[in-house]
Amino acid sequence: MSHARTVEIEGHIIDSGTMQRCFGAVMDLGGSFDVERFDVGTHEEAESYCRMQVSADDEETLQAILHELHQNGAVLENPSDVELVAAPADKVVPPNFYSTTNHPTEVLYDGEWIDVERIEMDCALVVDPDPDEGNGPRAYTRVLDAVEEGDMVATDQSGIRVHPPERPRSGGGAFGFMQGGVSSERPSESTIREVAAALREVKADGGNVMVVAGPAVIHSGAGEALARLVEAGYVDALSAGNGFATHDLERSLYGTSLGMDVETLEHPRKGHKHHIWTISEIIRAGGIEAAVEQGKVTEGVMYQCVENDVDTVLAGSIRDDGPLPDTITDAVEAQNAIRDQAHDADVVLMLATLLHSVAVGNCLPSTTKTVCVDINPATVTQLLDRGSAQAIGMVTDIGTFVPTLAEFVLEDDGESHTTDGDV
Amino acid sequence: MSHARTVEIEGHIIDSGTMQRCFGAVMDLGGSFDVERFDVGTHEEAESYCRMQVSADDEETLQAILHELHQNGAVLENPSDVELVAAPADKVVPPNFYSTTNHPTEVLYDGEWIDVERIEMDCALVVDPDPDEGNGPRAYTRVLDAVEEGDMVATDQSGIRVHPPERPRSGGGAFGFMQGGVSSERPSESTIREVAAALREVKADGGNVMVVAGPAVIHSGAGEALARLVEAGYVDALSAGNGFATHDLERSLYGTSLGMDVETLEHPRKGHKHHIWTISEIIRAGGIEAAVEQGKVTEGVMYQCVENDVDTVLAGSIRDDGPLPDTITDAVEAQNAIRDQAHDADVVLMLATLLHSVAVGNCLPSTTKTVCVDINPATVTQLLDRGSAQAIGMVTDIGTFVPTLAEFVLEDDGESHTTDGDV
Amino acid sequence: MSHARTVEIEGHIIDSGTMQRCFGAVMDLGGSFDVERFDVGTHEEAESYCRMQVSADDEETLQAILHELHQNGAVLENPSDVELVAAPADKVVPPNFYSTTNHPTEVLYDGEWIDVERIEMDCALVVDPDPDEGNGPRAYTRVLDAVEEGDMVATDQSGIRVHPPERPRSGGGAFGFMQGGVSSERPSESTIREVAAALREVKADGGNVMVVAGPAVIHSGAGEALARLVEAGYVDALSAGNGFATHDLERSLYGTSLGMDVETLEHPRKGHKHHIWTISEIIRAGGIEAAVEQGKVTEGVMYQCVENDVDTVLAGSIRDDGPLPDTITDAVEAQNAIRDQAHDADVVLMLATLLHSVAVGNCLPSTTKTVCVDINPATVTQLLDRGSAQAIGMVTDIGTFVPTLAEFVLEDDGESHTTDGDV
Amino acid sequence: MSHARTVEIEGHIIDSGTMQRCFGAVMDLGGSFDVERFDVGTHEEAESYCRMQVSADDEETLQAILHELHQNGAVLENPSDVELVAAPADKVVPPNFYSTTNHPTEVLYDGEWIDVERIEMDCALVVDPDPDEGNGPRAYTRVLDAVEEGDMVATDQSGIRVHPPERPRSGGGAFGFMQGGVSSERPSESTIREVAAALREVKADGGNVMVVAGPAVIHSGAGEALARLVEAGYVDALSAGNGFATHDLERSLYGTSLGMDVETLEHPRKGHKHHIWTISEIIRAGGIEAAVEQGKVTEGVMYQCVENDVDTVLAGSIRDDGPLPDTITDAVEAQNAIRDQAHDADVVLMLATLLHSVAVGNCLPSTTKTVCVDINPATVTQLLDRGSAQAIGMVTDIGTFVPTLAEFVLEDDGESHTTDGDV
Repeated sequence: MSHARTVEIEGHIIDSGTMQRCFGAVMDLGGSFDVERFDVGTHEEAESYCRMQVSADDEETLQAILHELHQNGAVLENPSDVELVAAPADKVVPPNFYSTTNHPTEVLYDGEWIDVERIEMDCALVVDPDPDEGNGPRAYTRVLDAVEEGDMVATDQSGIRVHPPERPRSGGGAFGFMQGGVSSERPSESTIREVAAALREVKADGGNVMVVAGPAVIHSGAGEALARLVEAGYVDALSAGNGFATHDLERSLYGTSLGMDVETLEHPRKGHKHHIWTISEIIRAGGIEAAVEQGKVTEGVMYQCVENDVDTVLAGSIRDDGPLPDTITDAVEAQNAIRDQAHDADVVLMLATLLHSVAVGNCLPSTTKTVCVDINPATVTQLLDRGSAQAIGMVTDIGTFVPTLAEFVLEDDGESHTTDGDV
Repeated sequence: MSHARTVEIEGHIIDSGTMQRCFGAVMDLGGSFDVERFDVGTHEEAESYCRMQVSADDEETLQAILHELHQNGAVLENPSDVELVAAPADKVVPPNFYSTTNHPTEVLYDGEWIDVERIEMDCALVVDPDPDEGNGPRAYTRVLDAVEEGDMVATDQSGIRVHPPERPRSGGGAFGFMQGGVSSERPSESTIREVAAALREVKADGGNVMVVAGPAVIHSGAGEALARLVEAGYVDALSAGNGFATHDLERSLYGTSLGMDVETLEHPRKGHKHHIWTISEIIRAGGIEAAVEQGKVTEGVMYQCVENDVDTVLAGSIRDDGPLPDTITDAVEAQNAIRDQAHDADVVLMLATLLHSVAVGNCLPSTTKTVCVDINPATVTQLLDRGSAQAIGMVTDIGTFVPTLAEFVLEDDGESHTTDGDV
Repeated sequence: MSHARTVEIEGHIIDSGTMQRCFGAVMDLGGSFDVERFDVGTHEEAESYCRMQVSADDEETLQAILHELHQNGAVLENPSDVELVAAPADKVVPPNFYSTTNHPTEVLYDGEWIDVERIEMDCALVVDPDPDEGNGPRAYTRVLDAVEEGDMVATDQSGIRVHPPERPRSGGGAFGFMQGGVSSERPSESTIREVAAALREVKADGGNVMVVAGPAVIHSGAGEALARLVEAGYVDALSAGNGFATHDLERSLYGTSLGMDVETLEHPRKGHKHHIWTISEIIRAGGIEAAVEQGKVTEGVMYQCVENDVDTVLAGSIRDDGPLPDTITDAVEAQNAIRDQAHDADVVLMLATLLHSVAVGNCLPSTTKTVCVDINPATVTQLLDRGSAQAIGMVTDIGTFVPTLAEFVLEDDGESHTTDGDV
Repeated sequence: MSHARTVEIEGHIIDSGTMQRCFGAVMDLGGSFDVERFDVGTHEEAESYCRMQVSADDEETLQAILHELHQNGAVLENPSDVELVAAPADKVVPPNFYSTTNHPTEVLYDGEWIDVERIEMDCALVVDPDPDEGNGPRAYTRVLDAVEEGDMVATDQSGIRVHPPERPRSGGGAFGFMQGGVSSERPSESTIREVAAALREVKADGGNVMVVAGPAVIHSGAGEALARLVEAGYVDALSAGNGFATHDLERSLYGTSLGMDVETLEHPRKGHKHHIWTISEIIRAGGIEAAVEQGKVTEGVMYQCVENDVDTVLAGSIRDDGPLPDTITDAVEAQNAIRDQAHDADVVLMLATLLHSVAVGNCLPSTTKTVCVDINPATVTQLLDRGSAQAIGMVTDIGTFVPTLAEFVLEDDGESHTTDGDV
């Protein structure tokens, strides 16, 4: 095997599975490895180090292997500066551009490793030599749509190193490390209790909780419980669609939930007229916030989001009725709004929506804690596969999950912080 | 029961289930009926007629009952003209506006029943007294977004009659009448053979075939078979998303399908870089058609669509990469494009996409033949529930369905119409 | 059409869908009908009557049509006595034997209609001229395995009439009439509240509640809630498998539920050793009841079943470990035990088990109220399709369903009937 | 941490994930490790060796950790002979009995490591000092039901070592190593082609192919294709249930498949009468083989199994009609028959049956190649999770999978080995 290169890998690379994946990648792709040095961390806290030569019969295979090793955190021995090529046009990347992972990443520029900002996968990596005039170079991810002619785009992977998540040294609590699978055999209520504890902990630490919610949250009767969580301050950002908001507003506009329940249980045509009428009324009011201010909307998730200044993004889709004036109908614009929410989130609850959850998941760094809940196991699996290293997946009924979660999250609050005891 | 009204229902109202639903609605909603006359069609071809008085304890209940009866085709005895009210503002409907069904509908205007054009559910119904100057009144459905201030919008349901689908007198072939359920116990190949026969029949009659396709069509290896169907002229319109097109184009841009298969089977990171690169290259070319003309794209579904002038709509969504320049990113604009396709279609194949299928289904009259194929039974059920009276639902693997369908559709062609025998 | 016969149908045959199915069957099978008389019930309480001549081109088609009409309750005009033929051998039925439906059925014997006892579908129908010596003839269903040489088995369908369920005149409450579909869009907690009300009502009327439970009830942490329902007297019969009982007993044998939770959440190998050990210990004790009496088992569902004299059947299957000495390993013997439970039940709760639910469903008359709960929509649909006319299907998480149900069922009890307040 | 023990682990323990799991287990369970020696294999073929001291705060935790390490192949330094305790009674194991894994296992007895025969998980491990009189000791797994009073049962895990599957050095072809997940994004036809190649390879090597089939194989129309595979000699053992056999026999007894298709597509009641009649006729003939010999059954899977001497086991279940006289109704007896089939199999195809697949999977060593095919992803995941290290999971339609597989397997045969060209 005449084509060879030497790489180094370090960290908790045995118990995080890094070495398994690296050795596996070499063998799967038909290459060969020769370990030159391997220092094994002798106890839990000690990191390991591996230097090995990787070889293949041809350069193309070798590059494919190096690509995999790179994505697992390996770095070429004696790396050189990142190679930058100017984008030939707006929204066009140069040949052999580097496509980002969702892991923390650094680039070697002018002999120094600098952190890449706004980590997100499947982006171009752009280095700006001195954006802040005199403060030196900065590096960012940039989605294709945002690439501008002349942007200095990283090509090849030399001079770039990524840091895949490592197994936390201590338990990690509810959020397992790269569980991958979906724990359908765990007791449901115990798992919800763990999620509740994690939420309380994140909020206690001043963290940001993002909720991604589909219309099934409302259909299933869980809207009231979600509204309580918003009211109690457990939701910093809401990412949803036109359908979610309309169903929620319809509950408020048509009065008592009793009235709604009766209708839902009885009406064959499912009150679609109410749906359209709700949108029409919100348009007439001038938007959701205006409708709240005018006293037209007095309860529900959207009401609480307005009242509690929750950062709310309603993204449009081709299946929407209306839409509401608050809905961002342009997909690129909506993505950018979601991206900003996602980058701020410390924990993300994905509740019964595949479309919005995928959109949010696409923007999340692999370090963000994520909880995916859906009745469809395929949805949960698909979301977990997209990449958070610290994720909980639950196949359960959103109509019982949210009320139970709200109960567990708020039960201590009820005793200690509030006086009305309404939970 | 002091509130009462008399309604008439006629047609194949027993075997189509109309009377069952009407009697049921009265009882479910707490009303009472008194059949004044019932002429039963004595043989298959003879229609039936029912006149009955419906009563309830209060006017609200009576109206709810009349609403249900109306949706099943009942008409008030001695109906008066449709009530029209001007829309108070753009995108705002008057109180008590009439929300359309997806069934053929007529309005009584100036004492004459006129057909409502562009039938679609959950719309406003607008009557224009004389749009073509001297040719008399016309009536249309109008989605909320398209309602303009001053449009004369139908309110209440008196003066409107709908024609729910009736059981066809002869078998109806593959497309069952209101099957509702999903026939998972039917032999798969036999069912695919029926769909193939239906497609050939529609095309033989000069009909329009619309295909709604998700990215799984390409992932599962079925792209080539779909491209053959397009090439052979069996597809008039394609409704898909940015992901479908990008995956398909990626196969073409990266050369042989063998090369692609190897990659798909081997690469842990799933070639996302290729994905972005494909979009970048299409942007550089100026769009898909330009890329075909420049010889960059030489095979696949999108290639065949360009070559065969297939009416193609790519609708954007918030989970898209890129997107391609051909993708319509605004949801309302994309919906309108899909609406035009849907109104022209005689048969619709929905292949492994929930989002796009729901969007298309929202625009379809209940008379359009529909085939829904997905590996997830919940998706098939949800799509069938939205309303076609003549629908086939199949829970199967799109990766074996499309190749088998193409084989069955094209096998006779191969013998009789074509000379290259490429199937 | 030279082959013809006249049939009569009566009852609430329009709103129950009977006439729709009858007319449809004639048309689907290529026959023709001529309605000779049709008296429509003019109000909700009035029954309808239809007499029609049915004809077909050949006798085989006519018989197929008559078979369908028969199953929908039609009777030949001027029916003759049921035709009986002796079974030629044990477990062998005569040619053209009549296979039962799950609807209430009568046979015309010696000019009198007598009720068929122990209604169950897919059985032979046996008439015994005078089993009780002097008390006249009786008729029974008999499964193939129970047919004995010489049994007088009904052949053909003339002289037999069935009574398919009719739409109840009053609402019917939670248990819809032939809903067919699964109401996944109904609010989960509201639906559980309806089930709870139905359970309380059945028990208040002195009815029999049968629970069919899969091991997921225990895995998901719902065992404790089910045990509470048993303790409070809401369960008369339990039908489960070896796995359910073993998992439940394991919780009890290994002490505190805390200990179990920790184990479940932590142990990669899932404590299979505990599983085998549990079975071994129960064998050593001489069975579950003995283990309870010896004080080895002190909590859980099986414990409560022993303490409260619940009629319990544990049916074996080929995937069982052990099995427990209480498990009936012979499938035919187990079926007979399940059959006895099913025939006594007034309401059946099917909780997260396809195998046992199908086995129970096979034995149920179409008049038994049924609740099917599973996280997999295909399971719920399959169970509802098997035939109860009054069924609720819920796609939800058993781990939250049972605790919520127990809470709703027992919340009033807690206030009024009991003193220990343990709920 | 005052409780400590030293263990050794060797083999391809990094790339097979063994060390990741071992380090992880220590940390998850709250222990600590101190690596005393770690020799890393420097290239693909070189094995690695690790010796480490494991410690914990208490003996119970230490034992839990050692249990996990043991299951991953770790052995105590300087192991002593296996500890054997006589079973106190039939079907009763001694306290602290050793429960087997499904990996190859050895026991240290009289200072020598001897192989454990008939590897199967969740069994007792019995050592017989000299069963063959003079040929020395042998060790076996024994299911609880087969344990007899006085059997010398292994307790504790010292003196026992297991060999979890290691990543194969060469690619491994279709059968991935511990893929765990289900490859739903792979092209369906390509994957089926791989399965076909694997089947041909196993048969070319004189291996044993076991097919586990559910009734959906027949319902979906795939029976004919499976019969062709049996006829061509690609099936050595068939494990199915009463339903599968009855549906298959019904197709044969009722003549042409055309006749059957028409019936399946048309008959609302699904020909259950035919089903019972089929069983009755087979009982009258004296069983399936007799029915074939008498010329009553002339085609189908069961026919081909009789004609080709395929080892067939029909296991009963509580949902069976009949059953057929060939069906083993006792679950324990049926399990033993399945066990014998499973121990002989080199590759197992599990086709659309959860119940029988789980039963077979319970008996399989982790080294047996397995293919799981089902339309329900949860079924495929559950089966793969049970333990084969070399497994393919496919979520696809059995009604198109089996015909496509038969085509791929037999297409070369058609050209080279056979003369009738019927494929």
